[in-house]
Amino acid sequence: MSAKEKKRGRRQFMKEGAALAGFAVGGGVIRAASGQTLGSETPAGRPPAGRPKDTRAYSERSRFETSSRWAIKGDWEHPETVFAPSRTPLQDLLGGIVTPSGLHYFIDESSPYPLPDIDPRQHRLLISGLVDRPLIFTVEELKLLPSVSRMHFLQCTVGGIRERNFIEFHETAQMMYGSTSCSEWTGVLLSLLLKEAGLQAGARYVTSAGAERGRRAYSISLEKALDDVIVAYGQNGEALRPEQGYPVRLIVPGWQGHNSIKWLRQIKVMDRPGMTKGDGLARLGPDGKMTIREEVLDPRSCITFPSGGQQVPGPRLYEIRGLAWAGVGLVRRVEVSTDGGRTWKDAALQEPVFRKAHTRFRLPWNWDGEETVLQSRCTDDKGNVEPTVADVRGKWGDNPDNWRAAAPASWKVTREGRVHNATFGPNMSPPPAPGTPAQNALNLNPAWKEWSC
Amino acid sequence: MSAKEKKRGRRQFMKEGAALAGFAVGGGVIRAASGQTLGSETPAGRPPAGRPKDTRAYSERSRFETSSRWAIKGDWEHPETVFAPSRTPLQDLLGGIVTPSGLHYFIDESSPYPLPDIDPRQHRLLISGLVDRPLIFTVEELKLLPSVSRMHFLQCTVGGIRERNFIEFHETAQMMYGSTSCSEWTGVLLSLLLKEAGLQAGARYVTSAGAERGRRAYSISLEKALDDVIVAYGQNGEALRPEQGYPVRLIVPGWQGHNSIKWLRQIKVMDRPGMTKGDGLARLGPDGKMTIREEVLDPRSCITFPSGGQQVPGPRLYEIRGLAWAGVGLVRRVEVSTDGGRTWKDAALQEPVFRKAHTRFRLPWNWDGEETVLQSRCTDDKGNVEPTVADVRGKWGDNPDNWRAAAPASWKVTREGRVHNATFGPNMSPPPAPGTPAQNALNLNPAWKEWSC
Repeated sequence: MSAKEKKRGRRQFMKEGAALAGFAVGGGVIRAASGQTLGSETPAGRPPAGRPKDTRAYSERSRFETSSRWAIKGDWEHPETVFAPSRTPLQDLLGGIVTPSGLHYFIDESSPYPLPDIDPRQHRLLISGLVDRPLIFTVEELKLLPSVSRMHFLQCTVGGIRERNFIEFHETAQMMYGSTSCSEWTGVLLSLLLKEAGLQAGARYVTSAGAERGRRAYSISLEKALDDVIVAYGQNGEALRPEQGYPVRLIVPGWQGHNSIKWLRQIKVMDRPGMTKGDGLARLGPDGKMTIREEVLDPRSCITFPSGGQQVPGPRLYEIRGLAWAGVGLVRRVEVSTDGGRTWKDAALQEPVFRKAHTRFRLPWNWDGEETVLQSRCTDDKGNVEPTVADVRGKWGDNPDNWRAAAPASWKVTREGRVHNATFGPNMSPPPAPGTPAQNALNLNPAWKEWSC
Repeated sequence: MSAKEKKRGRRQFMKEGAALAGFAVGGGVIRAASGQTLGSETPAGRPPAGRPKDTRAYSERSRFETSSRWAIKGDWEHPETVFAPSRTPLQDLLGGIVTPSGLHYFIDESSPYPLPDIDPRQHRLLISGLVDRPLIFTVEELKLLPSVSRMHFLQCTVGGIRERNFIEFHETAQMMYGSTSCSEWTGVLLSLLLKEAGLQAGARYVTSAGAERGRRAYSISLEKALDDVIVAYGQNGEALRPEQGYPVRLIVPGWQGHNSIKWLRQIKVMDRPGMTKGDGLARLGPDGKMTIREEVLDPRSCITFPSGGQQVPGPRLYEIRGLAWAGVGLVRRVEVSTDGGRTWKDAALQEPVFRKAHTRFRLPWNWDGEETVLQSRCTDDKGNVEPTVADVRGKWGDNPDNWRAAAPASWKVTREGRVHNATFGPNMSPPPAPGTPAQNALNLNPAWKEWSC
């Protein structure tokens, strides 16, 4: 779309918006003059002289803001009926690309242990293995080293809900895509620490382990470790949240989230993958050598408005909004279809586009009030195109519980303006009978039990 | 500094760091192997089966993180002794350029009223005056319009503490510079709303008013209103915090913070400045026309490490870190002196540099253990250089209580590694006698009473 077309589109947008949604209200000027109808502040008494009205060390959300990481179904008095995955409410985010730290997803349901509560003064990070000089750092020492701050997304495993859930659990963008979030991470490049430790001949893998009781550990290739991995202590300008690995975690940009070890305690340089409990993806090759599967994430995209569970007020011009991301690097293009995939238009990408970070896209959409289906499609800078439902199904197998999470959503808009998830159709599992214990994919594949993102 | 020099500097950094700070501890490997010394998680019992360990809708900081917006002095039982300005603890920020919303400054001490507690469903924004079509928007309607997300700093008035405070109140970066913060703001361009309302002949100023009981109002030129002003509802991906104007505020990038009207309720297009209580800067010219002073903020910079109140562990290589910002647009250059202003070196600027946003700078510094003074100096993309203490004093007058806030800091590092604010020297006011009522610049100049940032 040319700049001129954009300008015309925007003017048209406003024109129709005003005409159709009733924005222009001459009477409002008079009502407003009374000072009664527009103001909505709650009156209250004067605070004591000299005393500030707000003594909060740390400001909180308005009590009217209730967007939640939790999408809870079931009866809390009967835990076996509860599905309560913590996902980012992507459809509620009012911004460009940063996920508020308070709404960052947290997936750790396979662990029976409570959230680690680590005193940073007691925490240490050990670097050992095939190095000349094993090193131990306190958190304060890490903070004194040369630092980087970079915007990166994380995505847990295949990126959505792997649980064997009920149909309605996939209704919203939060439930389809909410196990991805994007933060500005600050810390020390792992390459800097490894160079200081001094890599020895034969070093090929780096195995990292967390301080949580489950002691999760995974291996990445040395090549990746020396590329862009961050030993991070900062998230969006402050310390990591406890769920995100406070006080120190790995950030392995663009790879499956479980590689980004949280509560990071130990880094070991090895000549083979660590074969930890978590390294279920390590493989013994025909040459007798151990390898791990490279875990670069596919390009993906998510329309957040209009999306499942939302209500579109009526026929008029809207701005379709969404997020896209790609494990290999940059999002180059996002196409949007407003007719169920027959035709596609390029959405505008918000600049600057960061490597391995969420990318905000926007596209004007003039809804005529007829039923239709909205879809999006991301292309990365290597030319990889977001997998289709058929692609994902082919990769993950026939059981929809296994691949549903990685499928791109089709949002159906009804003539009443209601938006539903129409991605799966008749392939969805039926809801379980009342009293059926909650099952999820973690129960289906023992290797997944160790994943925490 | 060339890439090669940078590389050498970094290697040297690590070498000295390891040698001087005792990072390389071979014994640590053995201690670590026991699994006892590195882990620091608090053990606890198993949660009920099926029950997630963390049911928080919104995750919070670790209990070990206590960085506070409040720098409190005095006895809360004797309010007249209390100075408790809310400033961003810039020296604690662990990141690039985003100020965590919870730590955004909030300066409203001149108002006797409590923080507005606005129900967004009841709130309206009125656009009236010299327009063809007066408009009223709900918050939800604003959110449906074409949106922008941009990183911008805000700075309250001259940018520091104007209060007639005690010497020790200026000790830290928070107290010297903490009335500036930087967020990603999301909303609708004011230009879009004004064009839709239809500007009439004679329109020259835009006066905006808040919904708080104080009903603050200020005027900006139409030229600025049509340039880059945002009617914002989002801050760092979520709704504005109540202190930052929930549910809607203006963002007037690069101008004095009080122009960015919070709790925004009314926008009126006029042929002259509004002459509101707050428009103390409006002037009647010799030609009989009213004008307002343009309020573009000077380029400024702040070394956040090492800064006043901090302790430098000992002689070794460090990374000097800080933030710079400029009202006219881009920060082009930040120079740092580590010898009290005799010589200056260019710091590295973190990319991308955003217009009218905080810009992170970093510079390696090899401290030899001798007493010295650290300073920084920002240059913007129009060639403006950050004012010196003498410049600021000349502009704001002899009383240091008036200009102290805008002065660039000199941080003195003692041989013991303690860092003090050495900016003012003997020009500082003596501390008041015990029992002296708190005074501040707001009491000195009635026009300032209306400022809220």
